[in-house]
Amino acid sequence: MLRECFYHVSQSNWAYAYDKHTIHLRVRTKRDDVMDILTITGDKYDWDRTYAEYPMKKTASDAYFDYWEASVKPKYGRLSYGFRMNAGSESVWMTESGIHDEQPAPPGGYYDFPYIHEVDMYAAPEWAKSAIFYQVIPERFANGDPSNDPDPTEPWGGQPTNDNSFGGDLQGIIDHLDYIENLGVNAIYLTPVFHSPSNHKYDTLDYKKVDPQFGSNETLKQLVDACHARGIRVMLDAVFNHCSEHFPFFQDVVRHGEKSEYADWFHVREYPLAVQDGIPSYDTFGFFPHMPKFNTANLRVKQYLLDVAEYWIKEIQIDGWRLDVASEIDHHFWRDFRKVVKAANPDAYIVGEVWNDSMKWLLGDQFDSVMNYPFSSKVLEFFSQSAMDGYTFANSMGFLLMRYPQQTNEVIFNLLCSHDTPRVLTCVGEDKRRVKLCVVFLLTYMGTPCIYYGDEIGLTGGPDPDCRKCMEWDTDKQDNELYDFYRLLIALRKDYDVLRSGSFRFLKADPGDPRIIYERLNGHMHFTVWMNNTEEETVLSHPMETDDWKDALSGETVIPEDGIMNIKLDPLGYRILYRFL
Amino acid sequence: MLRECFYHVSQSNWAYAYDKHTIHLRVRTKRDDVMDILTITGDKYDWDRTYAEYPMKKTASDAYFDYWEASVKPKYGRLSYGFRMNAGSESVWMTESGIHDEQPAPPGGYYDFPYIHEVDMYAAPEWAKSAIFYQVIPERFANGDPSNDPDPTEPWGGQPTNDNSFGGDLQGIIDHLDYIENLGVNAIYLTPVFHSPSNHKYDTLDYKKVDPQFGSNETLKQLVDACHARGIRVMLDAVFNHCSEHFPFFQDVVRHGEKSEYADWFHVREYPLAVQDGIPSYDTFGFFPHMPKFNTANLRVKQYLLDVAEYWIKEIQIDGWRLDVASEIDHHFWRDFRKVVKAANPDAYIVGEVWNDSMKWLLGDQFDSVMNYPFSSKVLEFFSQSAMDGYTFANSMGFLLMRYPQQTNEVIFNLLCSHDTPRVLTCVGEDKRRVKLCVVFLLTYMGTPCIYYGDEIGLTGGPDPDCRKCMEWDTDKQDNELYDFYRLLIALRKDYDVLRSGSFRFLKADPGDPRIIYERLNGHMHFTVWMNNTEEETVLSHPMETDDWKDALSGETVIPEDGIMNIKLDPLGYRILYRFL
Repeated sequence: MLRECFYHVSQSNWAYAYDKHTIHLRVRTKRDDVMDILTITGDKYDWDRTYAEYPMKKTASDAYFDYWEASVKPKYGRLSYGFRMNAGSESVWMTESGIHDEQPAPPGGYYDFPYIHEVDMYAAPEWAKSAIFYQVIPERFANGDPSNDPDPTEPWGGQPTNDNSFGGDLQGIIDHLDYIENLGVNAIYLTPVFHSPSNHKYDTLDYKKVDPQFGSNETLKQLVDACHARGIRVMLDAVFNHCSEHFPFFQDVVRHGEKSEYADWFHVREYPLAVQDGIPSYDTFGFFPHMPKFNTANLRVKQYLLDVAEYWIKEIQIDGWRLDVASEIDHHFWRDFRKVVKAANPDAYIVGEVWNDSMKWLLGDQFDSVMNYPFSSKVLEFFSQSAMDGYTFANSMGFLLMRYPQQTNEVIFNLLCSHDTPRVLTCVGEDKRRVKLCVVFLLTYMGTPCIYYGDEIGLTGGPDPDCRKCMEWDTDKQDNELYDFYRLLIALRKDYDVLRSGSFRFLKADPGDPRIIYERLNGHMHFTVWMNNTEEETVLSHPMETDDWKDALSGETVIPEDGIMNIKLDPLGYRILYRFL
Repeated sequence: MLRECFYHVSQSNWAYAYDKHTIHLRVRTKRDDVMDILTITGDKYDWDRTYAEYPMKKTASDAYFDYWEASVKPKYGRLSYGFRMNAGSESVWMTESGIHDEQPAPPGGYYDFPYIHEVDMYAAPEWAKSAIFYQVIPERFANGDPSNDPDPTEPWGGQPTNDNSFGGDLQGIIDHLDYIENLGVNAIYLTPVFHSPSNHKYDTLDYKKVDPQFGSNETLKQLVDACHARGIRVMLDAVFNHCSEHFPFFQDVVRHGEKSEYADWFHVREYPLAVQDGIPSYDTFGFFPHMPKFNTANLRVKQYLLDVAEYWIKEIQIDGWRLDVASEIDHHFWRDFRKVVKAANPDAYIVGEVWNDSMKWLLGDQFDSVMNYPFSSKVLEFFSQSAMDGYTFANSMGFLLMRYPQQTNEVIFNLLCSHDTPRVLTCVGEDKRRVKLCVVFLLTYMGTPCIYYGDEIGLTGGPDPDCRKCMEWDTDKQDNELYDFYRLLIALRKDYDVLRSGSFRFLKADPGDPRIIYERLNGHMHFTVWMNNTEEETVLSHPMETDDWKDALSGETVIPEDGIMNIKLDPLGYRILYRFL
């Protein structure tokens, strides 16, 4: 056994409370190196009377490692533990004190999970586990009220630039709630709606006022009420990292420099404020001079923004906040943000925009979820061509799954694209079959999926601003077949809990072969998904014991031959089978 | 290069802000496998203009791995980064997205430190870096006021049991401040002093009242004032995990069961409260029925205890809190505790009792330090016999150093023994020479050292209660030679900043050889410590360029021959050399 590969720390994604009575332990070993692992556990204050062993299960693998998991229930909430790795006749013990050839006397030097505290547990709102989001840019979704159109407003459907406008507004969304509801999604994420000089509204001028181009605060309330009446939740975009350069307090600093009573609201490196060689003398989002960064450590700033966070929950009962550039704001701020938001609505869903490993925001004290761009990029990389094999893809997914606790994986915000990335149809070379593979994967995988407006009717778009085109409402120009497909898959996910919270495992993911099979499983149902990520027709085979499988989309019975299920698949085809247990 | 051994995550001990402008990055490789590593860095919003490379330095090793470190100064506070590992002609790149044979295009998929927020930075009080603590059990240090002696009080110097008393009190400490000051320590840690039915006082009855057997609140104030007048800081013991069974609110629950308005102050599993087969029906410290555990998630409990924490700082200006059974209290509690304590005294030092890896309490939002028992156990294991080689010892120390950020290592509470462990003299088989090696190491190592009362005059003692013997005040029975040695070493540490904050490195730590040499180094001074952890006389040799070395204790000049320093050492002898740069 390659001992250098063993890895465990008694925190975060390696040891966490899954619920009040359950601790999940994970350990890592070199891939295909260790045959089985036993977790040795007890309460450190009475080891002998509380001793329990748990065999670990190999739950994921990546390019280098196998990941093992055990679900442990310590009777008194305290857990000391070690691991015994076995390979053939060799046994090795790993505890916090090191790796040992003989079992060290417990519990001294063993790993320790001191006590399960409910207050420290990561807990996302229950509804997020069953949510399917639809992301909407209000400016680009529909123009429901021409009276609030900005000047100039370009004709609907024109080419987006960094600063042009097409007149979309909140009334437009209200007008199309039938469409949204019919698609089957049960939650909407709106990019920013507050008063802002730009078309994207990510540079806020007035945090308590809906942008007049989008309507009024009352229109927003009507939208939220109308959504709630249809069982659709609404999440808004909180842009708290920075504001508009026209934000009054920043303008005060521009005018009065360090004498401004708001000087400490921002991070000014040098007065007077200036921009030299494209670098502002104050911190900004990126290096954009028109987006000055807030000093969120300033208690007045913090209070100001937390008040905004609370205001919209109390005022119009929004169901969550997506947090723009969340990683660049301090942790103290987010901890207080969580307290304020959860006090106002314990069921609010908090989703941070963090593109990297986000564990430090997901320890229970800050976010419920993050936008899962690493997921998007791996899914698109795999399905956009047939060059990557299933083995590599499964390794990527295994690596990402083991990065976070299971309950985070259940509500992580999975997306294929957004206002910040090229659209899925464009990413896959406009091959609709490849879009479908992506969508099948998204909607049969763990996490909270989000669909970017217009993807479902075949909108294309390269990088921002091209990915922010107007929604197509001409039914002749909408891809109705694709829409029906999205609808079907969304309905499937909503119908079967196992697709949301069942365990996930690859059944086939081989080197040199882009075809994959994976399963979702719980105590009641078993789904298997068969995907032919090649341009040739193929037959995929896998041992299947029972003959009670059905095609989830057609309903037809599918029967294995001699214990082998053989599934014929079109080029870039897929099939979803299920059975009740 | 064994890629499976590469390890880095963009958080905690692997990537942290050392100060407002500096990020420390660490990466791990297989031991003796990689020749050099380059950190490739930039600001993700303008990579090309901010690009910078930093060679990494191998700063520690353990049994399996080398640890590399770079100190990086991102101009705009944001840092994206990757690593290039080199071995001979082979180069490999590691980023968050994986390990690559070709450099991936930056910054997508690179590691990210989004922004240095001062408010999130770990920052311990400056004085703790120069503190040398002296731990005192008031009941066992000195009896200064026989009028408050409990009944019965046993004659001073008798054999401690779990519940006998010897009459020690706060006046006794006040009476011996000359002794303490003369020893040279500049901080005292007192085990609990609040009203409690036990001799150890770890089961509190009244958190706002000094135990009458120890004196009054006024006596405690006199003690703190007298210490402060001598430049000695005082840290008290906060026992917030549990209270005494006689604590009035717990008694209310005993009497009224679930109808008690204090029922939710504790963790009751079953009413009425009972003990069956030694297991209480409510959570306790360990399984001791007389120490019921507080429900610190209850806001009333939290407020009650935080008020206590604040009270003693404001009332008598204590300088810190040592937190009993800290790991079993929730993180929310400790975060608020830190806020309250630091608001009352920004310079208060917060030391948690955590016996295991404590990273999750040391992220800047909870503790400043923890009691470093893993350090004690490794130092005692090494110096108590001559069986372990220097290589293994150095590996243990390297492993422990890399567990925490550098600034934590600078104030971690290092001890050889305490009221909870056998005394150092007993641990080393009562061989005073071995005690001296331990003490030299403790006082020339990084961290905040603590000396357990009486160790300095040769007290012995096995496990609790034997390690809690009365202080020996008969000068004929005190080991004066040992006392002078402690005094000398304490003075040395106080005289030379390099022994507190200089870098640490083993110069000799070889397999099969228990003799070691290590250095402390800063821009002004260089110390080398030579230790013969064998029972034979020996000569230790090491290349030394200059001839300006002096013996730190005798002052004599020590000159190398032909660039080699040869140091003759007695059995279990040591020598400390230094030079100015």
